[in-house]
Amino acid sequence: MRCLARLSSKALLVLCSLLALLSLLLWTRCPQHPQPPAGPPERPGIPGIPDSEEASPQDAPRAPGMAGMAAAGPRYEEIDCVINEEQTVKGRREGGEVFLPFSWVEKYFQVYGRIAQADGAERFEFSHSYSKVYAQRAPYRPDGVFMSFEGYNVELRDRVKCISGLEGVPLSTQWGPQGYFYPIQIAQYGLSHYSKNLTEKPPHVEVYETAGDGNGNRNGNGEWTVPKGCSLTTVWDKSRLTGVKQFSCPESSEGVSLELNNGRDFILSFDLKLQSNGSVSVVLETTERNQLFTVHYVSSTQLIALRDRDIFYGIGARGSWSTLTRDLLTDLRKGVGLSNTKAVKQTKIMPKRVLRLVAKGRGFLDNVTISATAHMAAFFAASRWLLRNQDERGGWPIMVTRKLGEGFKSLDPGWYSAMAQGQAMSTLVRAYQLTKEPAFLGAALRATAPFKLPAEQRGVKAVFMNRHDWYEEYPTTPSSFVLNGFMYSLIGLYDLKETAGEKLGREARLLYERGMESLKAMLPLFDTGSGSIYDLRHFMLGTAPNLARWDYHTTHINQLQLLGSIDDAPVFKEFVKRWKSYLRGGRAKHN
Amino acid sequence: MRCLARLSSKALLVLCSLLALLSLLLWTRCPQHPQPPAGPPERPGIPGIPDSEEASPQDAPRAPGMAGMAAAGPRYEEIDCVINEEQTVKGRREGGEVFLPFSWVEKYFQVYGRIAQADGAERFEFSHSYSKVYAQRAPYRPDGVFMSFEGYNVELRDRVKCISGLEGVPLSTQWGPQGYFYPIQIAQYGLSHYSKNLTEKPPHVEVYETAGDGNGNRNGNGEWTVPKGCSLTTVWDKSRLTGVKQFSCPESSEGVSLELNNGRDFILSFDLKLQSNGSVSVVLETTERNQLFTVHYVSSTQLIALRDRDIFYGIGARGSWSTLTRDLLTDLRKGVGLSNTKAVKQTKIMPKRVLRLVAKGRGFLDNVTISATAHMAAFFAASRWLLRNQDERGGWPIMVTRKLGEGFKSLDPGWYSAMAQGQAMSTLVRAYQLTKEPAFLGAALRATAPFKLPAEQRGVKAVFMNRHDWYEEYPTTPSSFVLNGFMYSLIGLYDLKETAGEKLGREARLLYERGMESLKAMLPLFDTGSGSIYDLRHFMLGTAPNLARWDYHTTHINQLQLLGSIDDAPVFKEFVKRWKSYLRGGRAKHN
Repeated sequence: MRCLARLSSKALLVLCSLLALLSLLLWTRCPQHPQPPAGPPERPGIPGIPDSEEASPQDAPRAPGMAGMAAAGPRYEEIDCVINEEQTVKGRREGGEVFLPFSWVEKYFQVYGRIAQADGAERFEFSHSYSKVYAQRAPYRPDGVFMSFEGYNVELRDRVKCISGLEGVPLSTQWGPQGYFYPIQIAQYGLSHYSKNLTEKPPHVEVYETAGDGNGNRNGNGEWTVPKGCSLTTVWDKSRLTGVKQFSCPESSEGVSLELNNGRDFILSFDLKLQSNGSVSVVLETTERNQLFTVHYVSSTQLIALRDRDIFYGIGARGSWSTLTRDLLTDLRKGVGLSNTKAVKQTKIMPKRVLRLVAKGRGFLDNVTISATAHMAAFFAASRWLLRNQDERGGWPIMVTRKLGEGFKSLDPGWYSAMAQGQAMSTLVRAYQLTKEPAFLGAALRATAPFKLPAEQRGVKAVFMNRHDWYEEYPTTPSSFVLNGFMYSLIGLYDLKETAGEKLGREARLLYERGMESLKAMLPLFDTGSGSIYDLRHFMLGTAPNLARWDYHTTHINQLQLLGSIDDAPVFKEFVKRWKSYLRGGRAKHN
Repeated sequence: MRCLARLSSKALLVLCSLLALLSLLLWTRCPQHPQPPAGPPERPGIPGIPDSEEASPQDAPRAPGMAGMAAAGPRYEEIDCVINEEQTVKGRREGGEVFLPFSWVEKYFQVYGRIAQADGAERFEFSHSYSKVYAQRAPYRPDGVFMSFEGYNVELRDRVKCISGLEGVPLSTQWGPQGYFYPIQIAQYGLSHYSKNLTEKPPHVEVYETAGDGNGNRNGNGEWTVPKGCSLTTVWDKSRLTGVKQFSCPESSEGVSLELNNGRDFILSFDLKLQSNGSVSVVLETTERNQLFTVHYVSSTQLIALRDRDIFYGIGARGSWSTLTRDLLTDLRKGVGLSNTKAVKQTKIMPKRVLRLVAKGRGFLDNVTISATAHMAAFFAASRWLLRNQDERGGWPIMVTRKLGEGFKSLDPGWYSAMAQGQAMSTLVRAYQLTKEPAFLGAALRATAPFKLPAEQRGVKAVFMNRHDWYEEYPTTPSSFVLNGFMYSLIGLYDLKETAGEKLGREARLLYERGMESLKAMLPLFDTGSGSIYDLRHFMLGTAPNLARWDYHTTHINQLQLLGSIDDAPVFKEFVKRWKSYLRGGRAKHN
């Protein structure tokens, strides 16, 4: 310090200025802080490519490599990356390593990635695909969970216009904004609820009104408000052998109303019999700035309507007793999102509380409940729809025009689908196993008829190269050989042959066996070595393969997993293993 | 400055210290120099995935994205990148962008990249594949360049043991280290030299000895050294109507020697007739520390031998006049690299100068030259080998066992290959067009015979699904449907039908037409949407597709390009365009 102290002010001033300048310089242009030199990156040589008379002139392909890079220092710098001599992206270089920006990698390779939190730190999560394969719990059974359908939420799909009040099943807008009943969607609605019923806990049920059991027991009466000009009485119903609520209320009145006040669950159910036009409405508190919405179930045939904050579903005359089970969440959202397009509009609205039920007109009510789920109601709605709507040919005609793609003739309304037939079988067989009603089994057995006819005769059968029978999801001309629809049809046939027994199930068994033979033979045609192909249109039309996007690829795997649990041919296990590996970037070997 | 000057030394000292500290701090731990904040990376949302009843439970796949990243600052830091939840690689993060190390990208996606110099600066060159498609110069013609074979160097391939001195054609060790004449390789040897002859300039030829023209003209005599006990005279050859050199020299002597001293070219050619055992040797200066190597062409049937720096090729008795044309570069390198394995050993040795030619034994020599190339000699060596070696069934039996792969029966020695038959046709037809010798055309016409017989009858015909005729490169059981070999056979049939004319070429035309029909129908089965498949073993054996590596994929494209120039079916242009795009990372659409 002494020697320093001896320095003149001037010298110190100069030193100060120099140091300040140095600081400034460092601040603005400082280089990377030193890092331990990166070791030579682990890079095996280009795998020894055997050469052959057939391969192309690059007799010994000069494999580009980064051998020369290790010599460079560990400086971090921008470097132009020229991609296939076509475009340039800005990468980073650090010693022997070059880093490519994920924004480019993502688009170029069609992969996925995002920054995520893990253990308090941020990390980058790269994924080759966006779909996951479900882990099969147990061997498949015709009365068990259907594949992975316990995870499906058919009614929430934006191509489901709404759940019809008349039919109790979803109405599809997938290929026609006017809406149509799509047997595949209806069967899947049934099968998903059937599967949820097996995998979920029984729901909590809140009972609001039972009108007594008819033994003079007056328990189970709800808190009703009956305005002037209306009446509400408990009466004995002979047909049901129970007490019920009779209401009478002009349409113009406020209606009799039952206090519900449930903020927990949103599946409403009640028994109803109307003696005139009438309606049962439900008032909902919602997340929409706490606005009240009212869902009206009215004795009309209107599908759905929205006026301000009133949503209307026609439920038909209901002149005799029936149970109406409605998912108020779905009914609210489909109403608010109502649109004339193929898709229900996105909305964030959710019900927060079911305030009350309001009845108008003249009729009877009983057993008003709210529960978390009512899966079996949905399952039977689907099953019974299938019973009612099967035609004399054993099929469920699809009443919409379907153009599969360039090069295929359109399917005119009224076509059958092997997938619809198969998924209906899977549904009906389950309904039969639960109820033992012969009608369900009979319908499932009749559903095999279109499998025996070619597309020209309104059947669903195609034959690949004069050899392999195939059941067409879309019985197009030329044939299209859609893989996933075929496998669903095989699962349906399996369910049926297993349930119907040796004699009744003979037809189904033969169809199943022929189909499985075709599947085992033709499966390799759907394998690209890094994914799967949706159909065989490339072979039929001479075009590019119609690659399956990842969720279809996952469906293929799920189906093969299922089939592998009922048929121990090694092909299923091998394909499942390989096709699963594709989801993580695996690929077949090259020669 | 005035106010600064007023500061005490002490204050300045403190300031100085602080600034120094600051500088030090900045130096050691300085952050990145500021950059303009990176704009939000250009990233389209996940393409609107239409959903469907068939797709898997992820009804609306939650597409991972980097939306949250743009908010982060532009700091550069290491970040863990978790790949498919399986492994972690170290990436870099800079603001909203994540950079992935190429050493990982390379292995994961099987792509290529290297640092290269361009315009004085370094850049990173990324390529999706290592093969290039050749640009077709003109429509294909049966007397023109064969595909892109002007770029082939058959004799340099390490699976070519050597060029036989007896036969003048390559000997293959591809599927048997003992070596065998492989008609495909021989035809390609011929076709590549034929094509080079059309595309390259005529070579410079240095003439060392013609022994005069017999008219008393003594020009063209070389500089000979004749040691004691040896003789060398110019004599008249009645059969050739020209003067020739007669030599007589005991095997134990040094031999008569002709000064060559050529440091430019390495194709030696001379006419030879031996009257006893004898040899013609060539002394070479090489790059191997200037060591001298001698290549001996000896009157034996030995294929090739190496003793120290002496290399021996048997050339047979040579009792009558014939021309020997030898590529000294090839002969030297095959000798030095001689091995008992499937591949010639790698060597860096190259000839630098041809010093002299030495003859021993008794015989005649004429027309000693050295030139840069002698393509037509190689072409005719191949063509005449094919003439000599066709069997009574019209085929070129392949005398080696071939096992195509797991699941296929082995082909026993003596099998025919449609590719060999076709490439032989392409060669013979060209020899015929040049010479008009009927034997060449006759052999090509007889070569169609195996196309009409199935594998079980030693033919090369397979039928796909009872419908499409296919010509098998490997007539395996079950059929294998190798694509590139099939297309080579079609090109051969085309060459033949075009050359032979309506009547003689009828058989070839019918085979060609049926084959082209099959090709057009079956081509889509070889398309993965991101590359091509080598054969149909996946369909025949129920396995994974045998993906074509990039040089085979390029061969496919080159062949389709050629076929597209002789058949205007749109399928060829479409496939060429799409398959070319795969080389640059393109892929077919997914549904």
